[in-house]
Amino acid sequence: MSKEQQSAYRDAGVDIDAQDEALHRVKDLVRATTTPGVLSELGSFGGLFRPSFEGLEEPVLVSSADGVGTKLRVAGLVGDYSTVGRDLVNHCVNDILVQGAEPLLFLDYVGAGVLESGSVVQLVEGVSSACRENGCALLGGETAEMPGFYQPGDYELVGFVVGLVDRPKILDGSKVSVGDVLVGLPSSGLHTNGYSLARHVLFERQGLTVDDPIPDVEPRRTVGEWLLDVHKSYLRAVRPLLGRDELRALAHITGGGLVDNLPRSLPAGCRAVVHTDSWEVPEPFRAIERLGGIERQEMFRVFNMGVGMALVVRREGLETVLAELRDHGEEPFVFGEVVAGDRGVELSGEGAEGS
Amino acid sequence: MSKEQQSAYRDAGVDIDAQDEALHRVKDLVRATTTPGVLSELGSFGGLFRPSFEGLEEPVLVSSADGVGTKLRVAGLVGDYSTVGRDLVNHCVNDILVQGAEPLLFLDYVGAGVLESGSVVQLVEGVSSACRENGCALLGGETAEMPGFYQPGDYELVGFVVGLVDRPKILDGSKVSVGDVLVGLPSSGLHTNGYSLARHVLFERQGLTVDDPIPDVEPRRTVGEWLLDVHKSYLRAVRPLLGRDELRALAHITGGGLVDNLPRSLPAGCRAVVHTDSWEVPEPFRAIERLGGIERQEMFRVFNMGVGMALVVRREGLETVLAELRDHGEEPFVFGEVVAGDRGVELSGEGAEGS
Repeated sequence: MSKEQQSAYRDAGVDIDAQDEALHRVKDLVRATTTPGVLSELGSFGGLFRPSFEGLEEPVLVSSADGVGTKLRVAGLVGDYSTVGRDLVNHCVNDILVQGAEPLLFLDYVGAGVLESGSVVQLVEGVSSACRENGCALLGGETAEMPGFYQPGDYELVGFVVGLVDRPKILDGSKVSVGDVLVGLPSSGLHTNGYSLARHVLFERQGLTVDDPIPDVEPRRTVGEWLLDVHKSYLRAVRPLLGRDELRALAHITGGGLVDNLPRSLPAGCRAVVHTDSWEVPEPFRAIERLGGIERQEMFRVFNMGVGMALVVRREGLETVLAELRDHGEEPFVFGEVVAGDRGVELSGEGAEGS
Repeated sequence: MSKEQQSAYRDAGVDIDAQDEALHRVKDLVRATTTPGVLSELGSFGGLFRPSFEGLEEPVLVSSADGVGTKLRVAGLVGDYSTVGRDLVNHCVNDILVQGAEPLLFLDYVGAGVLESGSVVQLVEGVSSACRENGCALLGGETAEMPGFYQPGDYELVGFVVGLVDRPKILDGSKVSVGDVLVGLPSSGLHTNGYSLARHVLFERQGLTVDDPIPDVEPRRTVGEWLLDVHKSYLRAVRPLLGRDELRALAHITGGGLVDNLPRSLPAGCRAVVHTDSWEVPEPFRAIERLGGIERQEMFRVFNMGVGMALVVRREGLETVLAELRDHGEEPFVFGEVVAGDRGVELSGEGAEGS
């Protein structure tokens, strides 16, 4: 199609040249994630991946879809889309890690009213770098220009991951028993949940912009910096524990917080008691709670409150597990235990009464 | 979390009750798609699928991500989200079919400013019914409420499919040779491509609404009816031909039309000659061309023009292939052939000069 011929389509708001340019730059970022399983050349209709099943008794695929939510709006306000791609990949990788799976391949979807090359490349740079860090191939994806559907400067970003686990090693909570210990791994901020509430408190109620510091919060960083901290991947730290008897279950603390996510990893008859004073809830959670006048209960339902990944660990193996996590650069902390009772979570500690 | 406790989060635009209600109804639709490979219960972090590799020499995963584009806006104007879910699944299934793969599992993502239960259920009903028709499991998905990001009534819908093919049976165009025949399978309308241009011509230039008939077009149906015709899946008709020597390649005719998509299934040194007068371009393409004053060349670059799936078939096996496709309810037609030349597409026929 010549440039002249494109005119009617461009009048309708779709610029095929700009799309092509961005796609070209994106190709290099995709190639950089190639792993031995990748068979397809870019430009194929679908991505081809040949998994290795060596040493597996019964290979099981684990897959998950996720978005980044309104953290995207913060990225747009700051004018930096380089971090949300990493949020997306790490979020997806953690979601399948909790079932014992390691990631094989990832696909992304980018939607916008107009695909501006710079922003698209920033988005895919983030996706690509996190794929490399997690050892999974960015096997393909889709970019969609939808004029009039998205507001100028807004980008939607959706990700899909497929991983592999050997069936006997699937973590599903069934191994958890009374007396097990809850071990937390620190989050690196809000990760990708609670942004609607955070934006409401900081931008609408407090009238702050992304360039303002949050009042009375140390270290002194802007709202944008706090809110764009990258969602952490726990793959590297947790991988050595997969398939080991000491590790009973994992829970990725996303939307719904500890209250909603811990029970997903507990069997019937097991109840998690969370000692909320056993770790220091980090900024910016305390700032949002204080500035928004939000109940501590609700904070624990909306935000991760500093616990990004929860491990349910057999008490006898606790010290070994803690030492290994420290060896992998983590700062694990014990924050509760499993007791007999209805499946659920009990918050115990200052400000947690009435839970 | 009690209703009282939800208040601050609801003030920020996120209604967790409404989300829960929709998710509950969605669960039944998901369960209806269960296939023997499905291991996971809903509510797990990731979906679990155990593929059967029986009879395969070297199992290869094929995956693809897609959206529905601004066909979603048409669905919103009509007030009926029951069809776009089927568009999405069938589009994805066709995309991996062209490499010889049959679908195993599907995941969807639904984004909106406010998730209105009725619309979400309509969307997932479509996804679920098409998954059943294509024999793939709806293994999971994500719904995201992003206040202020989407306009009221707008929904984003993204899909992700994983299929399986035996490596020796991968279709990649390498088997195509000079003298092969191009066989078309009719599309069922615009499928999911060209909606920005179609909307521009019909709504903006012509001032039509979704409830108006398209002028001088028979049969007399509304713009909304024409534009929401469901993207067809070709799995059932094409599956019996997979792995057979007569079938050299497949091309799913999506964005970019025959001009962009046919070359993706051709090896170097092979050129597709398309006889544009060998089939009747159906309404509504002719209406859009006429009403928009759009060049025939551009029409072939933006729309499928009536060819939803193209098969490259060995000449000696042609009659057998045509008969088998007819046995599966298709109305195949020969629309061109492969000649020696630069990889590309040549449009030959009335109104196709200068291509």
